[in-house]
Amino acid sequence: MIKLFYSNEMKESDILNREIQNNDEVEDIVADIINDVRANGDQALLDYCKKFDHADLDSLEASQEEIDDAYNSIDPEFIQTLKMARDNIEVFHRQQVRKNFVINDKEGIVLGQKVTPIEKVGLYVPGGTASYPSSVLMNAVPAKIAGVKEIVMTTPPNPDGSLPQAILAAAKVAGVTRIIKSGGAQAVAALAYGTETVPKVDKIVGPGNIFVATAKRRVYGIVDIDMIAGPSEILVIADGSCNPSYVAADLLSQAEHDKLATAVLITDSKVLAEKVQQELEVQIPQLLRSEIARTSIEQNGKIIVADSIQQAVEISNRIAPEHLEICVDDPFAVLNSIQNAGSIFLGKNVPEALGDYFAGPNHTLPTSGTARFSSPLSVDDFVKKSSFIYYTKDALSQVQERVVDFATREGLTGHAKSVSIRFES
Amino acid sequence: MIKLFYSNEMKESDILNREIQNNDEVEDIVADIINDVRANGDQALLDYCKKFDHADLDSLEASQEEIDDAYNSIDPEFIQTLKMARDNIEVFHRQQVRKNFVINDKEGIVLGQKVTPIEKVGLYVPGGTASYPSSVLMNAVPAKIAGVKEIVMTTPPNPDGSLPQAILAAAKVAGVTRIIKSGGAQAVAALAYGTETVPKVDKIVGPGNIFVATAKRRVYGIVDIDMIAGPSEILVIADGSCNPSYVAADLLSQAEHDKLATAVLITDSKVLAEKVQQELEVQIPQLLRSEIARTSIEQNGKIIVADSIQQAVEISNRIAPEHLEICVDDPFAVLNSIQNAGSIFLGKNVPEALGDYFAGPNHTLPTSGTARFSSPLSVDDFVKKSSFIYYTKDALSQVQERVVDFATREGLTGHAKSVSIRFES
Repeated sequence: MIKLFYSNEMKESDILNREIQNNDEVEDIVADIINDVRANGDQALLDYCKKFDHADLDSLEASQEEIDDAYNSIDPEFIQTLKMARDNIEVFHRQQVRKNFVINDKEGIVLGQKVTPIEKVGLYVPGGTASYPSSVLMNAVPAKIAGVKEIVMTTPPNPDGSLPQAILAAAKVAGVTRIIKSGGAQAVAALAYGTETVPKVDKIVGPGNIFVATAKRRVYGIVDIDMIAGPSEILVIADGSCNPSYVAADLLSQAEHDKLATAVLITDSKVLAEKVQQELEVQIPQLLRSEIARTSIEQNGKIIVADSIQQAVEISNRIAPEHLEICVDDPFAVLNSIQNAGSIFLGKNVPEALGDYFAGPNHTLPTSGTARFSSPLSVDDFVKKSSFIYYTKDALSQVQERVVDFATREGLTGHAKSVSIRFES
Repeated sequence: MIKLFYSNEMKESDILNREIQNNDEVEDIVADIINDVRANGDQALLDYCKKFDHADLDSLEASQEEIDDAYNSIDPEFIQTLKMARDNIEVFHRQQVRKNFVINDKEGIVLGQKVTPIEKVGLYVPGGTASYPSSVLMNAVPAKIAGVKEIVMTTPPNPDGSLPQAILAAAKVAGVTRIIKSGGAQAVAALAYGTETVPKVDKIVGPGNIFVATAKRRVYGIVDIDMIAGPSEILVIADGSCNPSYVAADLLSQAEHDKLATAVLITDSKVLAEKVQQELEVQIPQLLRSEIARTSIEQNGKIIVADSIQQAVEISNRIAPEHLEICVDDPFAVLNSIQNAGSIFLGKNVPEALGDYFAGPNHTLPTSGTARFSSPLSVDDFVKKSSFIYYTKDALSQVQERVVDFATREGLTGHAKSVSIRFES
């Protein structure tokens, strides 16, 4: 059964107990795989496909025919759902597009910032039960909107060498440009360093298991990465008027992801707290992934009874959850007080799952309290900015003495000279 | 003497040879320091001040009196320069401020993104010859504009327990809220985990030596960090009409930073190439830091003779330099072709040093080719975004079947249930 706390009896460690752990054994395995891919390229990828995916591939790359066949085999209603989800994601993310700016209000001076898309992006898609077409859309669509030219997807093949149809269809709907049949740390290494078939990219995005996450951390700096996602989290703030069965269902929608997932309810109603506690017991056995959900709820789940909704918000800001539901009658009144949260679901009829698949905002969100300083995946993650400066010689002459003095005080006479030399006769 | 290449004779490795190196010995030292600070807090910081800075401190924090005394002791002209630089930085960075957005064009649906400042930021300022007041301005001003409430600066004290006057004055001008006397990995650990005196922050920014950089990398995830800056770089694209002594001075303004710094000239003029080569030999001995500059120029410096300015730009895009000067008559004609560069200096009279101190754009820039995917430090680095979703029950009912189908196809029945339960009778 889920644990129940009262806010005035909680220790700091009851609220915040998420620490990132390293695993030395995994580090060593991943380091070897990366070195192998750097040394042996495609052949290493083919060998790992045999070893880990039990697939004997003729080609590392999915053909256009394979992609089209998968797309045509799928229920047209689901293709329609994918397209509607893509369109919603596009509408939301287009609002994130940034323009260049120029400042030209002083005689002879132009300053500005230009925004340029990252040229090539790698998109990792896990295999097995974590093979999610929604992830393909959520990662590829913002990259497309940013203007990324090449989006290279990698995902592990089935033993017969095929790829999951829904993943191929989502890739086609999202506009992925190439699809590589490779998974694990080896796929990340290929994207970071390039092989005969796999282009070296500038940034790698997408979720993955511990081997993928470790590989991404190791190649960070050679290429950029999106983030290292921790276990999924949901925090529900609910008042006494909420339906306990809805609240329980929403908590379970994250608990079913992973035994390490965290589901927390904070409420100002002891009655609701106890009803949700009971309702969880009713709903857990009904889930396909009931064992995972039970472990998550019993080990990491928490119901906190707070003095008020305001206190609930304060506790939530310290936890900085990935998903935050605000189940009260006027959720917009609370929105301004939310300081730290990845995605916020407003009102009693906005289950977090709506955002995972369909509404439009991204489902790749900061976990483990990183919403204190990190943001949902966005168009910003697929562009970079360059600043630029233009001064006429006259404009430079008016400030040259100050720049020369500043540089000289910092002991950098070369910096000073590069300015003063332009005014020597 | 600087090496001279012809573009058609260059190997790929002549152009790009920057790889990040780890240092296991430093890693171990830094890990011990971090553990010590976590265990012993202020006392560990005081002990390290004795050991490394030879300072026996009464208090880890600079008093308001110390700050005001330093400010009042400095040449008022330099205070004026600091204020003018701050104002220019403010004008530029204010253009980066992002607004919230809301999308409300479908009945019963509100989507949006809100932008919130990071609450607490730590700013590391190195000691010794790398103690730069310009860095204080470049890091603190964007944080202020973002709305960061607390900016905690740490910097190592002099042996008498004082701090450099220019650093204190710059901190006052920039609006730093607290100043801690501590340097090295121990200061980074204190900011990441907090001590009795030092508040635990959400993000750490600012340059530092290998111990500071290693500590930042280790605490990344617990807190955010800005970037791990590599050695400084300048790439100058110049045509035959340029003054070789200006070009040489500009190359040296980065070469004097660090023996590992890289200065590259790409020109379409063999005559200019040779004149700059000679001019470097004239100017190097005139520098205060001539030995550093000479090592940098001889080991990492490069002059590349290209077929055309267009080819020079293509090579530059592959190198993705930190600082890029475009010394041609119409630099704005070239600007659009620049894909990868931290900061771009347009025209023959815009030495890179102008941007280091005064013009307004940030001087904290992506190094080591990371301009392919990274950006100059900006207001964006001191905020985070949260998305939000509101649907009425009617709006949800219109899409519920698609969301339930999508979730079920991904094997996540708990996700499906959290939607469907709201429509069960």
